[in-house]
Amino acid sequence: MDAGNVAWILTSSALVALMIPALALFYGGMVSSRRILNMMIMCFGGASLVALLWVAFGYSLVFGDSVGGLGLIGNPFEFAGLDQALVDDPDAGIPLALFAAFQLLFAGVTTALVAGAAAGRMKYGAWLLFAGLWATLVYFPVAHWVFAFSNDTATGGWIANTLGAVDFAGGTAVHMNAGVAALALALVLGKSKDWGGKLRPHNRPLVLVGAGLLWIGWYGFNAGSALAAGTAASVVFLNTTVAACAGLIGWSIVDRLRHGAVTSLGSASGIIAALVAITPACGAVSPIGAIIIGAIAGVVCCLAIEWKFRLGFDDSLDVVGVHLVGGIIGTLLIGVFATDAAPNGRSGLLYGGGFELLGVQTIATVAVLAYSFIVTWVIAKLIQITIGLRIPEEHEVAGIDEHAHAERAYEDEDLEARA
Amino acid sequence: MDAGNVAWILTSSALVALMIPALALFYGGMVSSRRILNMMIMCFGGASLVALLWVAFGYSLVFGDSVGGLGLIGNPFEFAGLDQALVDDPDAGIPLALFAAFQLLFAGVTTALVAGAAAGRMKYGAWLLFAGLWATLVYFPVAHWVFAFSNDTATGGWIANTLGAVDFAGGTAVHMNAGVAALALALVLGKSKDWGGKLRPHNRPLVLVGAGLLWIGWYGFNAGSALAAGTAASVVFLNTTVAACAGLIGWSIVDRLRHGAVTSLGSASGIIAALVAITPACGAVSPIGAIIIGAIAGVVCCLAIEWKFRLGFDDSLDVVGVHLVGGIIGTLLIGVFATDAAPNGRSGLLYGGGFELLGVQTIATVAVLAYSFIVTWVIAKLIQITIGLRIPEEHEVAGIDEHAHAERAYEDEDLEARA
Amino acid sequence: MDAGNVAWILTSSALVALMIPALALFYGGMVSSRRILNMMIMCFGGASLVALLWVAFGYSLVFGDSVGGLGLIGNPFEFAGLDQALVDDPDAGIPLALFAAFQLLFAGVTTALVAGAAAGRMKYGAWLLFAGLWATLVYFPVAHWVFAFSNDTATGGWIANTLGAVDFAGGTAVHMNAGVAALALALVLGKSKDWGGKLRPHNRPLVLVGAGLLWIGWYGFNAGSALAAGTAASVVFLNTTVAACAGLIGWSIVDRLRHGAVTSLGSASGIIAALVAITPACGAVSPIGAIIIGAIAGVVCCLAIEWKFRLGFDDSLDVVGVHLVGGIIGTLLIGVFATDAAPNGRSGLLYGGGFELLGVQTIATVAVLAYSFIVTWVIAKLIQITIGLRIPEEHEVAGIDEHAHAERAYEDEDLEARA
Repeated sequence: MDAGNVAWILTSSALVALMIPALALFYGGMVSSRRILNMMIMCFGGASLVALLWVAFGYSLVFGDSVGGLGLIGNPFEFAGLDQALVDDPDAGIPLALFAAFQLLFAGVTTALVAGAAAGRMKYGAWLLFAGLWATLVYFPVAHWVFAFSNDTATGGWIANTLGAVDFAGGTAVHMNAGVAALALALVLGKSKDWGGKLRPHNRPLVLVGAGLLWIGWYGFNAGSALAAGTAASVVFLNTTVAACAGLIGWSIVDRLRHGAVTSLGSASGIIAALVAITPACGAVSPIGAIIIGAIAGVVCCLAIEWKFRLGFDDSLDVVGVHLVGGIIGTLLIGVFATDAAPNGRSGLLYGGGFELLGVQTIATVAVLAYSFIVTWVIAKLIQITIGLRIPEEHEVAGIDEHAHAERAYEDEDLEARA
Repeated sequence: MDAGNVAWILTSSALVALMIPALALFYGGMVSSRRILNMMIMCFGGASLVALLWVAFGYSLVFGDSVGGLGLIGNPFEFAGLDQALVDDPDAGIPLALFAAFQLLFAGVTTALVAGAAAGRMKYGAWLLFAGLWATLVYFPVAHWVFAFSNDTATGGWIANTLGAVDFAGGTAVHMNAGVAALALALVLGKSKDWGGKLRPHNRPLVLVGAGLLWIGWYGFNAGSALAAGTAASVVFLNTTVAACAGLIGWSIVDRLRHGAVTSLGSASGIIAALVAITPACGAVSPIGAIIIGAIAGVVCCLAIEWKFRLGFDDSLDVVGVHLVGGIIGTLLIGVFATDAAPNGRSGLLYGGGFELLGVQTIATVAVLAYSFIVTWVIAKLIQITIGLRIPEEHEVAGIDEHAHAERAYEDEDLEARA
Repeated sequence: MDAGNVAWILTSSALVALMIPALALFYGGMVSSRRILNMMIMCFGGASLVALLWVAFGYSLVFGDSVGGLGLIGNPFEFAGLDQALVDDPDAGIPLALFAAFQLLFAGVTTALVAGAAAGRMKYGAWLLFAGLWATLVYFPVAHWVFAFSNDTATGGWIANTLGAVDFAGGTAVHMNAGVAALALALVLGKSKDWGGKLRPHNRPLVLVGAGLLWIGWYGFNAGSALAAGTAASVVFLNTTVAACAGLIGWSIVDRLRHGAVTSLGSASGIIAALVAITPACGAVSPIGAIIIGAIAGVVCCLAIEWKFRLGFDDSLDVVGVHLVGGIIGTLLIGVFATDAAPNGRSGLLYGGGFELLGVQTIATVAVLAYSFIVTWVIAKLIQITIGLRIPEEHEVAGIDEHAHAERAYEDEDLEARA
């Protein structure tokens, strides 16, 4: 075991953990001042619950030996309790405890991403129940498909092994999974009372800071997925950086052409859209390829976020437009821009690989989208008809923070003295 | 010297440094808008002063050869000026310069923790004097007791060596030390003019972000205390993560049962209480043990923070209820949940170790509590009767920021235009 | 290739990237609530544009073989597109991809620093054009002079090699370069309509948090510049820490003596001024030397920021007073306090090295200042007489955010309900 690799994955895990408060800021700044606490608590609380399930059975479902060798789900009892994490195995690349912590944080962050679809109108208890069921029935299986590589002692997931799709850090299992789940949850939840109305982001600097911290955390997500500190992680780091920058520039250009101004929300969203798109592709392309993918994501997602008005679902934080669309862009464009000189060693359409990789990527995309949308919709519907999903209308109009959490985000003695 | 270990402790040191702005946010969001600057400046200023003392004599007091071999205090002259930090010693695990920087930041963060007890009513000059004296007379000796392990060339502290208590990252020297010192300082300072009154946290999102960043910084604190990037640090990382998550869930349940709602302050405090409790125990327990300790800390600290109203001391930021109580919980529960399969290799009550370890932990707890409380009380009293501790009452009512720091945190041209 | 070194430079790169959102907070908190978005977007957008130029030709201009062996500028075509980043070279200290990413972020952060001089009054398109030209014509050449060390295959820059000045992490190429460029840009831009008027920092907690996060990011900047995880990086880490703390204390003392109070802006600026000054010197001095340099920077910069009122240029964020003056202090004081026991192995005046090193440092300082000021002034002037630099006066008075970015930073439904 090389301490350098361990050092980098320890760091990467801390960076992925940083994405939880970063996401709370990014989402929290985009809602109104009467909804921010709910938004932030959903991020922290959802991730925390998933962490406990991870120890109980989540790690087993994802990285346990595939039940029946089918590549659909791991053996839920294999690592129950994670006592194996205490064993010191000098032959492992990194300690099992560290791999378990790194992947735990992936599960937590992915679940928290979905919360953006529920802004301002979902019971907190229903959210926690949803988070637990969604992690168990959607994230853990899909993560098994994509992240569990077969080895001497265990059979892994079908997308990683049988299909052989390329997804370096989670374009399918993380971003399009969370994005399409957000769509399903938003459809079942229904529109906010204020949809299309006067509620606007109450604190745009928080959105920019959140995006900036997500960017930093993403280095752990992407370059940490190399599971070693070497050339692969370094290429991924460089590609992640230039893609993010190209995303900001791409979105800014569309912003300027269509709306006459470059906005702070557009700058933040351009960064995030590109980071989403480069997540599966970061180990498969050259720096120029990363710039192209980032720029395409910035441009297309900037156009895609307007679909919600036409299609009529309430995704005011653009989880669908950014994570779903960005995830699809990145996963499919691997089939075009992958170069075998990059760490993944695969060739796409433009590098002589023909349509094969593009086909494989498309199958992975369709499978994850279909499974995640259907199961998420069923989970949301079941909660709706049992304990109910939404808070009372009068609480929603008055602001969810005060009613669901008995708090207000900001209490300013100055303002009160003047009022 | 393995570069991987050095890389991780460099990173860990940066993460511990992150705890200073994180603490400034966490504390700053909990006070009113006329007191936040004072709270933040106390964190930065206190830590900065301690850093200079560290170079002058602090490192020597903690890690110098124990005077008379008694394990009570290091030789203050041994490393005065820290010129030894420039020497390149290939046989060391990590460079002395790095160990000195890592431990410097522990001293700075611990001192800053105490500032929470002084919110809104202490002269800044008196705070700096207190910080310098407290670090010198309380933190440096106690850190010597707990963190200075004996080696070929030097005798270390009595708790680490003679007693053999388990404290992986500072449950005694850091958290219960800071917590009981906060209690002593709060008692000598007396209540705020507004105690029990209308001042409420003015910006709860800052509290949540502060808690989130403290969480990230804590990885450096705990997993960095392994002083190497290997299985021990990895186990500690996993335990720290799941404990924090269990703390949030535990505190949330009590919040819900007693107050009918899960609050943002409760979510943030649950995370911190659990991180405090797992700090001494992170290398001694299994992931399940970490979850139990985190959950107990969340539940008990949620109940403990109400004591301040009954006992009548002004600890509006709950330094006592979280750091003192959480630190005691974690330190004592090692005696129950320690498993010899974990990095510390010690067995508690439930793992066949009998009551021995529990007894040792109790002695360490009582010793640190008694010493720290008494010496802190004397320091505070001495400052009170010489230069005085508190700002004038009219300044406190009007807000300490404007009078002690000649500034207001927020100046909004919009508001002013409307006023 | 040692994975430990790679791990640390991966981490360092993430830390340097953190400086972009940190700077956006630090600058953003210092302007009014109608200007913060512009300030933050300039930081993110400027850095993003420079990242794309870096891949196209920037890395080549800095680290390409010096054209004609003159040490003035690298061959712009040598690494165009950075495809070389995909090559795995086991003999390299760190992968080229990683070195390219690390230095890319230096270029981005340095450019963003200049934005502080343009607060509230510069067209965003003009800023992006300026950023691209400035990086190309000023930063890339100067970085070649200072950061490109000659090796077997390429000739590097004249300051690093021919002159042999000491600049560990960028006192010349980064801080005095950005600081003097800020002066030139501020002079060409002219004063804000409100200069000397009622606009004050609208959110001082953001300034303190920004400073705190910059401090953390700076560890990547300085200790990452060792390009390895060993004693040199460790000494640099310790020196950076104690210098920052001494800067806060030094500025606080002057604040108190001159204004009767220690301010939050002073505490934040003291940290940053000291970090600037220790940047070139962090590998050349002892911890005591670092404390002295940090304290001098805190004291002198606190006095220097008042020159803007006497000299009549509009640098309301004190980029000149902190980065230019701090950079000069640190670069020149190496000639005084350098000790050959430190990683750079050079001796200054007080350590028996005579005036030689002081002379070398002075030449580097004068060369960078003169080149950067003149070329920056010409770039700004050319933009002024072509597309124009400033927004219309009525937009500036009403607040640049609403007109240039079609957004307001804060929209509070509560306030609106009361208005």
